[in-house]
Amino acid sequence: MTTSISSVDTRALADALMALHTESPLVQCLTNVVVAQWTANVLLAVGAAPAMVDNPHEAGEFASIASGVLVNLGTPFDDTVAAMRSAVHSAAANATPWVLDPVAAGGLRWRTDLAIELLESSSPAIVRGNASEILALAGGSGGKGVDSTEAPEAALKAAKSVANRYDTIVAVSGPVDHITDGDRTVLISNGHPWMTQVTGVGCALGALMAAFAAVSTDRLIAAATATAALTVAADRAAATSRGPGSFAVRLIDELAALTPPELSTSVRLT
Amino acid sequence: MTTSISSVDTRALADALMALHTESPLVQCLTNVVVAQWTANVLLAVGAAPAMVDNPHEAGEFASIASGVLVNLGTPFDDTVAAMRSAVHSAAANATPWVLDPVAAGGLRWRTDLAIELLESSSPAIVRGNASEILALAGGSGGKGVDSTEAPEAALKAAKSVANRYDTIVAVSGPVDHITDGDRTVLISNGHPWMTQVTGVGCALGALMAAFAAVSTDRLIAAATATAALTVAADRAAATSRGPGSFAVRLIDELAALTPPELSTSVRLT
Amino acid sequence: MTTSISSVDTRALADALMALHTESPLVQCLTNVVVAQWTANVLLAVGAAPAMVDNPHEAGEFASIASGVLVNLGTPFDDTVAAMRSAVHSAAANATPWVLDPVAAGGLRWRTDLAIELLESSSPAIVRGNASEILALAGGSGGKGVDSTEAPEAALKAAKSVANRYDTIVAVSGPVDHITDGDRTVLISNGHPWMTQVTGVGCALGALMAAFAAVSTDRLIAAATATAALTVAADRAAATSRGPGSFAVRLIDELAALTPPELSTSVRLT
Repeated sequence: MTTSISSVDTRALADALMALHTESPLVQCLTNVVVAQWTANVLLAVGAAPAMVDNPHEAGEFASIASGVLVNLGTPFDDTVAAMRSAVHSAAANATPWVLDPVAAGGLRWRTDLAIELLESSSPAIVRGNASEILALAGGSGGKGVDSTEAPEAALKAAKSVANRYDTIVAVSGPVDHITDGDRTVLISNGHPWMTQVTGVGCALGALMAAFAAVSTDRLIAAATATAALTVAADRAAATSRGPGSFAVRLIDELAALTPPELSTSVRLT
Repeated sequence: MTTSISSVDTRALADALMALHTESPLVQCLTNVVVAQWTANVLLAVGAAPAMVDNPHEAGEFASIASGVLVNLGTPFDDTVAAMRSAVHSAAANATPWVLDPVAAGGLRWRTDLAIELLESSSPAIVRGNASEILALAGGSGGKGVDSTEAPEAALKAAKSVANRYDTIVAVSGPVDHITDGDRTVLISNGHPWMTQVTGVGCALGALMAAFAAVSTDRLIAAATATAALTVAADRAAATSRGPGSFAVRLIDELAALTPPELSTSVRLT
Repeated sequence: MTTSISSVDTRALADALMALHTESPLVQCLTNVVVAQWTANVLLAVGAAPAMVDNPHEAGEFASIASGVLVNLGTPFDDTVAAMRSAVHSAAANATPWVLDPVAAGGLRWRTDLAIELLESSSPAIVRGNASEILALAGGSGGKGVDSTEAPEAALKAAKSVANRYDTIVAVSGPVDHITDGDRTVLISNGHPWMTQVTGVGCALGALMAAFAAVSTDRLIAAATATAALTVAADRAAATSRGPGSFAVRLIDELAALTPPELSTSVRLT
């Protein structure tokens, strides 16, 4: 059953953004080297405090004091994988929400196995990926590299299956974002094609989900608010940009300017 | 013999850009951590699909499905060097074109030896560097760090020597870009000094060459089209920028907006 | 004793910027993966030549030819730590000034021990950090992650203690920057809150200090000029920006445009 979120729920998104502004959660990111700067700047724009602590000596220690943890498999190395295992273990021990972004799962065996291993070691608060990645986690084959070869709609059944199997929220990014806890599904249709022409927009969305999961007990709302904030800001940024370069710059500006009332007014739940 | 490219050839550049837009080749980048994000955004701007798969567990596997591979020696580590060897081996086995960017070759021994080792293990489609780096590959001494201390003109003989010895195309970046297969040489004089004030513009050019080599059987045309697209976009970006910060942003916008007819009209072959 | 810098000294800042433009020092950066690109672009904007040589095979060799060295502990790994030790040893042997940026010292044990070890192995020209980090080096407890939980004023005594103990300059970043050699203290009040909403502004400041230390024998002037150049450019950038995204872009433009006379006119020494 796909249910639209009610008007009460758009207020819930505004409340979550307000909470983020107030609490400024410390978000530990174990992410890829391509998007680390961009991810930090996106987190700073919404008022979160990013910390890229991703070495095996410190990742577990830091996860015990972080408010949320992002594990992104974009460019894994032995060192960072050891750090990820340590951070996930520590997050679980401290009941800290963590988010898994299984970049290119399905397309590459080593990281697909790693994604499954991490999923099975401890339930993440949220799993975020494109349709190909989510299909791969559900047992299907993956896509070509980091880009999805499937539409989010085609992955919804797989998303629900992953959500139920691992007791998590699954967010499938695409022209319409699909976010499900296995039962309830939220659809968000904001956003702009330039989001796919800037590297790391999806990766930054995973980081935003970790930030919102740190301030919201309802993980579905956390994932939906992160998606809504990013895509509403993208709508606004695209309106005053000339191409993907200026769009990326304006997206940061718009994220920083976005208020809770503007979020609830502009989000399109379909 | 230095021959200007004929009017037929400017159409060849336009055709190559058209092919890139149509085929959206998957370009695997084993590049340095400084420019990874920038490189991905430059590739996305022209319509290629970047994938930064640079760990030793997956680099060889991925090179077997990639359409083109970039190996850039900017910040090599033992892990990434192992991945580079694996990717080059796999690219050769699959007849996938790969591009070598020997950053700071000559200035540092370890990476100079590595560049020579990779060159000798398998012919790259294209070698791209500044004059000092190309002189170093030909057996001379290198420059100071990553910046060239020599003009491209002074390196043309060395470039032809490297092209002939390793059966490759050599592209020497500078105020006038020199691109040679050892026999034919193309000179391109577009571009702006701000290109040297933004880190990674040369590195991104290497990635573009891998993208064009994936869609063009004539490797000289591939290297020339990459150079022409980047420098024509740079001319346009500089015209509306106030400094190197805004120039970098506009360069992405202009690359994304550049059409094949505009490319053939604006390129200056001298 | 806190003494304001005299009018002679504002000319000294202008002279240092002039020297940087003239000499274009080669600055080796062993920094974190989050800010590497940004740091290189900041260095290029002021006319320095950045080189991110941070692998253990080459870091020591390169430090022997670099004009200044930055060691930033933002994302340390075993490989880069080995490179840092090698670079610091080589810098000391060659009387090359090096700058320590002890990111998140105090908040995490491994890197705090590393910061102390490096400090004790050889006197850096300058130590740059936020108040929490400097307090941690002086023996106090640290802050939360990478952000300071203390004001610079509260850290001045600790800064003087560190400066005296390790024969170095200590620069404490904050709304008012405090820079001390243990005796003289310079206060600079330029800057904008958006500097804290762009990741790596402080890290880039450390790199600028390495650049100015390479061209100025007075290390206090070097640290003050780096701070003045960055914060004066920030004032100007903020005036024409709409948020932290466009601010980061304009900051590069303004750094590139800043002239020595403008620097001495606009800096606010309090």
